[in-house]
Amino acid sequence: MKAIILLSGGVDSTVVLAMALGRGLVCYGISFDYGQRHKVELKSAALIAKNYGIEQKIIIIDPQTFTKSSLTTASTVVPKDRSVAEITSLGIPSTYVPARNTLFLSYALGQAEILNADEIHVGFNAMDYNCYPDCRPEYLEAFQRIASLGTVQGIKGNGIKVIAPLIHMDKTEIFKHGKRLHAPLHLTFSCYDPSIDELPCQRCDACVLRTSADSFCHSSKNEMMDGG
Amino acid sequence: MKAIILLSGGVDSTVVLAMALGRGLVCYGISFDYGQRHKVELKSAALIAKNYGIEQKIIIIDPQTFTKSSLTTASTVVPKDRSVAEITSLGIPSTYVPARNTLFLSYALGQAEILNADEIHVGFNAMDYNCYPDCRPEYLEAFQRIASLGTVQGIKGNGIKVIAPLIHMDKTEIFKHGKRLHAPLHLTFSCYDPSIDELPCQRCDACVLRTSADSFCHSSKNEMMDGG
Repeated sequence: MKAIILLSGGVDSTVVLAMALGRGLVCYGISFDYGQRHKVELKSAALIAKNYGIEQKIIIIDPQTFTKSSLTTASTVVPKDRSVAEITSLGIPSTYVPARNTLFLSYALGQAEILNADEIHVGFNAMDYNCYPDCRPEYLEAFQRIASLGTVQGIKGNGIKVIAPLIHMDKTEIFKHGKRLHAPLHLTFSCYDPSIDELPCQRCDACVLRTSADSFCHSSKNEMMDGG
Repeated sequence: MKAIILLSGGVDSTVVLAMALGRGLVCYGISFDYGQRHKVELKSAALIAKNYGIEQKIIIIDPQTFTKSSLTTASTVVPKDRSVAEITSLGIPSTYVPARNTLFLSYALGQAEILNADEIHVGFNAMDYNCYPDCRPEYLEAFQRIASLGTVQGIKGNGIKVIAPLIHMDKTEIFKHGKRLHAPLHLTFSCYDPSIDELPCQRCDACVLRTSADSFCHSSKNEMMDGG
């Protein structure tokens, strides 16, 4: 069985890759250079692919494609210093990139057809779909219909499955999963707004969620050790 | 009302544009440079946009994206000398490009969100969906769900509509429609496999369908004139 993994270089997609390899799948990573502020994540994606010895392709997306998001427009401001509760309750942030995930999934679908892959794996999770419309379970079901109806594999009856193994997990659970699987989380990069010398800002939503989840894992590990 | 028009430079999308302008919509054309053999169609697309005085964007798609189609791979052979009956009954031809229309529609969806457009118009028609999975009405319905569920406009209740006004028409009807609307069909380009000096081969499926439909229009016009 073959799987295409949407590999951003962040924690979620790295854990997804670790899970897919754990299932014995032959994995192909695809990553996107789409004019993101945090293009440094692509270095992490390449390191993670190399770490696991999987093939990886970086697809370049025409920079005129995305122009209405603080994630791709240097002159706009990335939200900072929001609590986890604020991040997950205040609606769609300016870091939403119009139709980005639809585009990523479409590229993945094309690669799946070309490589005759059985599955596409994405790292969408419960933290995302509170914020972004194109991460929700019903959206993924709609994309599954596209994969089934709009491909040769689909109409031949051996359609490509779209799988989001983290869809009901929060960030803490994802970290726990990753640690259990010995995923190379130290190679991942999360920050939306890194400094010129490529250091995480520690204040954007991605940094806040990462720090919160990681410290929770550490504290519960310590509690377990203390308690054990 | 604003509409994004997928403008290939062929007859179908030109008629779709003429129809949309006829409805009084403000139209934005998007075209794709995706490594197609018939890249010359982009010259037609630009001329058609200029003819109507509409804005047009040509989006470049990373050439490593499509590698399993005779439409994008110079070393493979485009089917030739098939009759209209053969073209529409013999299943998926080698000119099928994996997930191409899903990718085009995804780009259109992003542009629609960026420009706050109400509709996306495509030239899919009855001649296509006999051959290609990603042109069928049920596929378009699935993409409509993506547009409704996966965008900010969609979840705010003013979703982007995906419209295929030619979906039940054959090529002859499309030509008739185009002529009635005085669409600049003389500027369009259809051939999948043009010569180095950019002349249509007259033998590929696209040329056969065009010639057949156009000559039918001419003969029925002559008959009408003879009879009338």
